[in-house]
Amino acid sequence: MKILIVYAHPEPKSFNGAMKDLASQVLQEAGHSVQISDLYSLDFDAVGGVNDFMEIADTKFFNYLNEQVRATNDGGFVPELKTEMDKVVWADFVLFQFPLWWFSFPAIMKGWIDRMFAMGFSYEIRRNFESGIFREKRAMLALTTGSPSMLFRSDGKLGSIEDILHHIHWGMLRYVGMDVLPPFVAYGAARATAEQRAAYLEAYKERLRTVETTSAMSLLALPPSAQ
Amino acid sequence: MKILIVYAHPEPKSFNGAMKDLASQVLQEAGHSVQISDLYSLDFDAVGGVNDFMEIADTKFFNYLNEQVRATNDGGFVPELKTEMDKVVWADFVLFQFPLWWFSFPAIMKGWIDRMFAMGFSYEIRRNFESGIFREKRAMLALTTGSPSMLFRSDGKLGSIEDILHHIHWGMLRYVGMDVLPPFVAYGAARATAEQRAAYLEAYKERLRTVETTSAMSLLALPPSAQ
Repeated sequence: MKILIVYAHPEPKSFNGAMKDLASQVLQEAGHSVQISDLYSLDFDAVGGVNDFMEIADTKFFNYLNEQVRATNDGGFVPELKTEMDKVVWADFVLFQFPLWWFSFPAIMKGWIDRMFAMGFSYEIRRNFESGIFREKRAMLALTTGSPSMLFRSDGKLGSIEDILHHIHWGMLRYVGMDVLPPFVAYGAARATAEQRAAYLEAYKERLRTVETTSAMSLLALPPSAQ
Repeated sequence: MKILIVYAHPEPKSFNGAMKDLASQVLQEAGHSVQISDLYSLDFDAVGGVNDFMEIADTKFFNYLNEQVRATNDGGFVPELKTEMDKVVWADFVLFQFPLWWFSFPAIMKGWIDRMFAMGFSYEIRRNFESGIFREKRAMLALTTGSPSMLFRSDGKLGSIEDILHHIHWGMLRYVGMDVLPPFVAYGAARATAEQRAAYLEAYKERLRTVETTSAMSLLALPPSAQ
């Protein structure tokens, strides 16, 4: 497979960094091709808007969707976005590596979605979900949490991780047609012992080795707990 | 009340801009004090990390939470964040005005949360939810969607807006202790007719006039559809 790892963490020596490095190594050893988008190192601009485009067609009223469709057709995205879009087109599989911040992606990764998943490029009206433009691609989230796993139960203090990630799984990845594999979650990574971290990396290695044969989740509009 | 409007849209003449202007006007006419954080006009940096701080205590390993706690104690946040933090401390009520992008905040608004809701400043271990630091404050989302309302039903193509917003309502606003009012949603704003837009603004005006007496939602860890 051709695999794109989209990675967001401000500290290269973090556990997220270790997971990203492990994934790159294990996946290449398994014969896959790997590219990495290290968003913090790239100083990726998280803010979608006029700066996505070489030129603006309508300078009197900035209509983001119209400009996205136009830029898809005439190649008018800025090089920073073109580079990322080429990687997405290239990839069979997109792996997101990030710390869960406020029940969601860090803003820099949300910005990658906002800008990359441009109308025309990643979806069109009625070309979404099962008929989505990226329906031949697969995706998976690999993440760390600050809180321990016991807080992430349906009846726990925070709620289940599947419910929390639903807006990403369903509203971002499945929306553009991707098949989404179950997430890999390293709970409480910040305060984990060296042994716990080693165990997480070992378990992650196993997940990565079987990623090609892992079944996608059956996602619906309803959050998992409500199904 | 003292009201902070946090507003994110790349086009000032957008319907989001009109909703922000209306809110500012109506709330001031009702006797409230209003401040506005116009994130696109501020060119607000969405990316949380080392640039949040005047100095870094541990330059060998950037631990975001540790630096946040330290900066809360010694006033070490950069002026851009201090200014926003002062507004949050000042406000009784925080109103978020934004277009729903990919089932969530635009990245610039998620970045405002990532950077503003610093550990120490907005929460501490065991100081969250009902014992949260901001438990005397209230918040509300006012948003537009691209898709029409018929797609936002529990059994619809996208799912209910309450489920979609759950990660914000519960995981961001309620987490820091805020009482959260029901959202105001202008569905399909981009393709609405002038009459529909006028009707939305009229309905929004009514919501704003009664905002002081509106009851907060009863939020739980479970998404609304699963309760």
